[in-house]
Amino acid sequence: MTQMRATVFHGKDQIRVEEIERPHAGVGQAVIRVTLTTICGTDLHILRGEYPVQPGLVIGHEPVGVIDELGEGVTGYKVGDRVLVGAITPCGQCRACLSGHLSQCGHGEGYEALGGWRFGNTINGAQAEYLLVPYAQANLAKIPDELTDEQVVLLADIASTGFSGAESAQIKIGDAVVVFAQGPIGLCATAGAKLMGAALIIGVDGDDERLRMSRQMGADVVLDYRACDVISEVKKLTRDGADVTIEALGTQQTFESALRCLRPGGTLSSLGVYSGKLQMPYDAFSAGLGDHRIVTTLCPGGKERMRRLMEIVRRGRVDLTPLLTHTFPLDEIVEAYQLFGERRDGVLKVAIKP
Amino acid sequence: MTQMRATVFHGKDQIRVEEIERPHAGVGQAVIRVTLTTICGTDLHILRGEYPVQPGLVIGHEPVGVIDELGEGVTGYKVGDRVLVGAITPCGQCRACLSGHLSQCGHGEGYEALGGWRFGNTINGAQAEYLLVPYAQANLAKIPDELTDEQVVLLADIASTGFSGAESAQIKIGDAVVVFAQGPIGLCATAGAKLMGAALIIGVDGDDERLRMSRQMGADVVLDYRACDVISEVKKLTRDGADVTIEALGTQQTFESALRCLRPGGTLSSLGVYSGKLQMPYDAFSAGLGDHRIVTTLCPGGKERMRRLMEIVRRGRVDLTPLLTHTFPLDEIVEAYQLFGERRDGVLKVAIKP
Amino acid sequence: MTQMRATVFHGKDQIRVEEIERPHAGVGQAVIRVTLTTICGTDLHILRGEYPVQPGLVIGHEPVGVIDELGEGVTGYKVGDRVLVGAITPCGQCRACLSGHLSQCGHGEGYEALGGWRFGNTINGAQAEYLLVPYAQANLAKIPDELTDEQVVLLADIASTGFSGAESAQIKIGDAVVVFAQGPIGLCATAGAKLMGAALIIGVDGDDERLRMSRQMGADVVLDYRACDVISEVKKLTRDGADVTIEALGTQQTFESALRCLRPGGTLSSLGVYSGKLQMPYDAFSAGLGDHRIVTTLCPGGKERMRRLMEIVRRGRVDLTPLLTHTFPLDEIVEAYQLFGERRDGVLKVAIKP
Amino acid sequence: MTQMRATVFHGKDQIRVEEIERPHAGVGQAVIRVTLTTICGTDLHILRGEYPVQPGLVIGHEPVGVIDELGEGVTGYKVGDRVLVGAITPCGQCRACLSGHLSQCGHGEGYEALGGWRFGNTINGAQAEYLLVPYAQANLAKIPDELTDEQVVLLADIASTGFSGAESAQIKIGDAVVVFAQGPIGLCATAGAKLMGAALIIGVDGDDERLRMSRQMGADVVLDYRACDVISEVKKLTRDGADVTIEALGTQQTFESALRCLRPGGTLSSLGVYSGKLQMPYDAFSAGLGDHRIVTTLCPGGKERMRRLMEIVRRGRVDLTPLLTHTFPLDEIVEAYQLFGERRDGVLKVAIKP
Repeated sequence: MTQMRATVFHGKDQIRVEEIERPHAGVGQAVIRVTLTTICGTDLHILRGEYPVQPGLVIGHEPVGVIDELGEGVTGYKVGDRVLVGAITPCGQCRACLSGHLSQCGHGEGYEALGGWRFGNTINGAQAEYLLVPYAQANLAKIPDELTDEQVVLLADIASTGFSGAESAQIKIGDAVVVFAQGPIGLCATAGAKLMGAALIIGVDGDDERLRMSRQMGADVVLDYRACDVISEVKKLTRDGADVTIEALGTQQTFESALRCLRPGGTLSSLGVYSGKLQMPYDAFSAGLGDHRIVTTLCPGGKERMRRLMEIVRRGRVDLTPLLTHTFPLDEIVEAYQLFGERRDGVLKVAIKP
Repeated sequence: MTQMRATVFHGKDQIRVEEIERPHAGVGQAVIRVTLTTICGTDLHILRGEYPVQPGLVIGHEPVGVIDELGEGVTGYKVGDRVLVGAITPCGQCRACLSGHLSQCGHGEGYEALGGWRFGNTINGAQAEYLLVPYAQANLAKIPDELTDEQVVLLADIASTGFSGAESAQIKIGDAVVVFAQGPIGLCATAGAKLMGAALIIGVDGDDERLRMSRQMGADVVLDYRACDVISEVKKLTRDGADVTIEALGTQQTFESALRCLRPGGTLSSLGVYSGKLQMPYDAFSAGLGDHRIVTTLCPGGKERMRRLMEIVRRGRVDLTPLLTHTFPLDEIVEAYQLFGERRDGVLKVAIKP
Repeated sequence: MTQMRATVFHGKDQIRVEEIERPHAGVGQAVIRVTLTTICGTDLHILRGEYPVQPGLVIGHEPVGVIDELGEGVTGYKVGDRVLVGAITPCGQCRACLSGHLSQCGHGEGYEALGGWRFGNTINGAQAEYLLVPYAQANLAKIPDELTDEQVVLLADIASTGFSGAESAQIKIGDAVVVFAQGPIGLCATAGAKLMGAALIIGVDGDDERLRMSRQMGADVVLDYRACDVISEVKKLTRDGADVTIEALGTQQTFESALRCLRPGGTLSSLGVYSGKLQMPYDAFSAGLGDHRIVTTLCPGGKERMRRLMEIVRRGRVDLTPLLTHTFPLDEIVEAYQLFGERRDGVLKVAIKP
Repeated sequence: MTQMRATVFHGKDQIRVEEIERPHAGVGQAVIRVTLTTICGTDLHILRGEYPVQPGLVIGHEPVGVIDELGEGVTGYKVGDRVLVGAITPCGQCRACLSGHLSQCGHGEGYEALGGWRFGNTINGAQAEYLLVPYAQANLAKIPDELTDEQVVLLADIASTGFSGAESAQIKIGDAVVVFAQGPIGLCATAGAKLMGAALIIGVDGDDERLRMSRQMGADVVLDYRACDVISEVKKLTRDGADVTIEALGTQQTFESALRCLRPGGTLSSLGVYSGKLQMPYDAFSAGLGDHRIVTTLCPGGKERMRRLMEIVRRGRVDLTPLLTHTFPLDEIVEAYQLFGERRDGVLKVAIKP
């Protein structure tokens, strides 16, 4: 068998499941047979032509699978091992990786912006029957037997990203944290803030179902921006402003609100993908004198990150399965994209089974 | 004697040296007889009406002096001690101070934006014969005998601020650093980058004299923005972009260039005072996915900060006296403001002697 | 009324509740009427002559009360306010405090080892009807109305100390943590590790009741050192060794085990009070080449720390009331010391009501 | 040509330069022709049987050379490139490396204590004509044309180690630092403390020549332990004790002094290799309550570390060539070991030219 079915991007608004050639593992690589994957908001941006990707590419970047083939130089694994692979696949050996910036991986050399994100961006991705994993030694994370595919698939991207919003902000025990937008990433940021010991977590959104899920993932208070003035509510709840605000959408509105809610010396942790010019109102920014920090984070990857996140799930610290609201076979992925894109039917995340 | 001479702000473009009442030390306070002070760029903003201050206030925030009176509850000092007092005078006992955010001091309670900056902002300042020091226990730093007033006066604000640009960026041994604008603050940021072990320091300005001084304070390479494309030069010198860029002016142009020069995962440390909406071009910002950090810092203060900076000078690590280009008596301070404001005569900083 | 009842230390094995003079508030001080306090393991060390304290001193350092008198210069409080005061009462204005080392407070000047711990150590303490609070502005933390005295009294010392064991170790999401000894401090360290996002928490003790409570406070696995080889069990559970180990007893045995359980590059966070020479076996220490860190922490104090911990309780993150196993009136405190000292009756902490 | 000359360890006190088989580069590896190397104190420990190494091994771990052969999968290099390789050669792809603990590299899997140190420890080393470099992609650092072999050879180990003593201690601008022992590592720690902005650096040794060199490398004050009481001198110079002390020898005496010189809240950064039980006197350690940190560091490696250190040399921040006091051809290395081991003739480091 040398063919496989895969979700191929053919330009704006055009994806199709097709037969294409199965990959083979070169030096330092592996091929996995994908057993579960999902669709990310970023995939929607690609489909809508908002994020440029080469036509002909297989998309998707959240793979769970079984090792099917191991290239030369990969040790400690065997065909048949169940593995989780992060959305970000660092080489571990470039200037960026050796400096701890795995997401900005320079593929053996220096830094490359977003260079760690390759699946469904610069190489074929996970919405397929088989997936070629680059730098396999650094990226294959064995799944403990007691965890199901469904329990770990969301760790590849959204949990890793969402938690990193809390981590990059260096949340401390007792902090007051506001998370703007409670989509999948924002919900995981909420869970991350709880994991790190925030005392007060405020979830902000304008969708009843997402506000309900926000509470379930750890928010103490939820604010519906359709019904209240979020900034003045946060000030009431925190007096001096929040210690940390997390932006999980990528708009001027949420970014600006996240800045206006901060106390002096506070940290705005940004996870959103922005387009256009982003403005920092100088008053919200204390004219640059408020000792504020603005930190941005791309999803952390690599097998150690995945191992840690699986431990979190294994020990019952977080359960992400409630976010997996729907399941589709790979051959019906186009319908899954429609449902997900239109946010129909209370969808949060869609499981795709090849 | 109950009167003293002081520089009083009377509204836009109006300052005068006048006789006003001498202050007296209440509980926890001290009065110092000022022996040396200087004019800051911020004082110019006040004079020009760009930063709002109550008419009737004595301005200036960089005092060296001798203790003249000690209020109740201040211990370990005696009248006659020579002291340096930082521009920022934290209380040490509010939520902000106890959290280490001394510059955002809430005066015994919570946080207040810029609350640590009181001299010449919310209480009478240093361009006078006598100065009331609040929270004296936390703010009087004894000057070692071997240091002159001239050697320490610039530590109160510009050195503390400039160095903090390097410190907040967490410069590491071997970093490549670009400092935008080589006025007094930028020159001190350059010196700070050198102090912290940067390997390559690039000073950027458009004034020959300041570029010359930039080399003297530690720049390895200087770039004249009138004569070259700064961003492409930095890319050539660093390949991946700078590890750290420091903004020391407060304009859209310098901020944006500082962002464009950064490598992925790099830190922009902002010291400038901005007005208007500041824009972050989403491309320079990697659409929010470049693992960038933007940190802003207000001048650190308190007696321990001043003690540390005096140690740096005492041990010969930095010599700031070349920046003190002119000297005026207090009664001629209006002329000093003119010279300083017009950047005449190669002026960098002006010493004022009451 | 100028007298009050207080627990006075009169030398080894001698404490008595006596009438002594009521304190009055000087400049910057406050007097509180104590409504609840407790006995700490350190008080037992004092009583047994193992920690030197001046005879005649009132002991105890965990006060909840109501403001009775406010000295000059203390603002933002009023008589009648309910307050929690930490065991550590930093001045906020010395070199140590201004550097963030509040527990090593130098009382207005430099550093003093353990200088922040004054109650029942160098000044009269909390096991009394009234308590003089030094540096009141920095140390009076108002108690939210919805919290009872019982909910907050353990925050003054054991929760602040126990959590700090996790904080100083810089526990990260997904860490494996072992806590040696599950007395009150160790149980709070266990809770702290959970608060900070550890994935696997292993509690070690040799007392069934404490092991049971260890699970209640957050341990995933408990190890009874009477029944297993702790080090090899930890290695089995973690493969490479623990990321962090916390020592909460102060013996050679627990310290050494904590070192032997660490993975290379791991952190040993020490909370115990040691006596005699402590030995680091060079093999466990990788001969000094294992990139290990050993950090020690004295209870963090100050009103902001207390505020943060009260927020943690208020939002239901942690409930410490199960640790308060017994209650005594102040006049029966000698019996309470006996029960506590002999660990009778499953005692963990004793509430004392003046 | 399939043979080469190499320094082979044959058991305690037995090394010989012999003809052995030349290595060849497998997948991910490289072979370099060594152009300059040196002898490390650790090599002496090996020779004296104090550190166990397999007889038959080629020793040495500080190589400068020219790429002679590149294995499959190594990109961005070509035969003939001049390279520096660190003493520590991390894989970049194991749990330890992906967590930033490159020196405790687990070779593709978990953690291994000291696992990053392979040359002359677990695989053949650098005192030979040719050297096989594992994980070449992560470890070959190109040498800028303007730097000579002599300028960079000491970066592979002693500068990287010495600087890391300052880095792990997180030295801040204005710190007072004491470095115990001024051998090659201690001298580099002194230089590192200066690079990071320490205000006062005190070098301690008992050898006139090393004390002289200590001043040259950045010490402001040197203390001869033969002639003064080091601890009381440090207390006089710093009042509260040093902010940071660095131990660069590995004895009970220096470790204990380093602990006794610290201020409360200070950091002891340990670089020495210890044998036997190391004791922490509980008084010096404030009984575990002084908020002290003890950090140990093994030489950082990898190509990015080497690149950064070469930048430091290239920009003139540090010049280590004065430490290279003698030069020998490879065939006379046994004599070089004698001179170095006996510390004859003012020797600090010996250059070995194959």
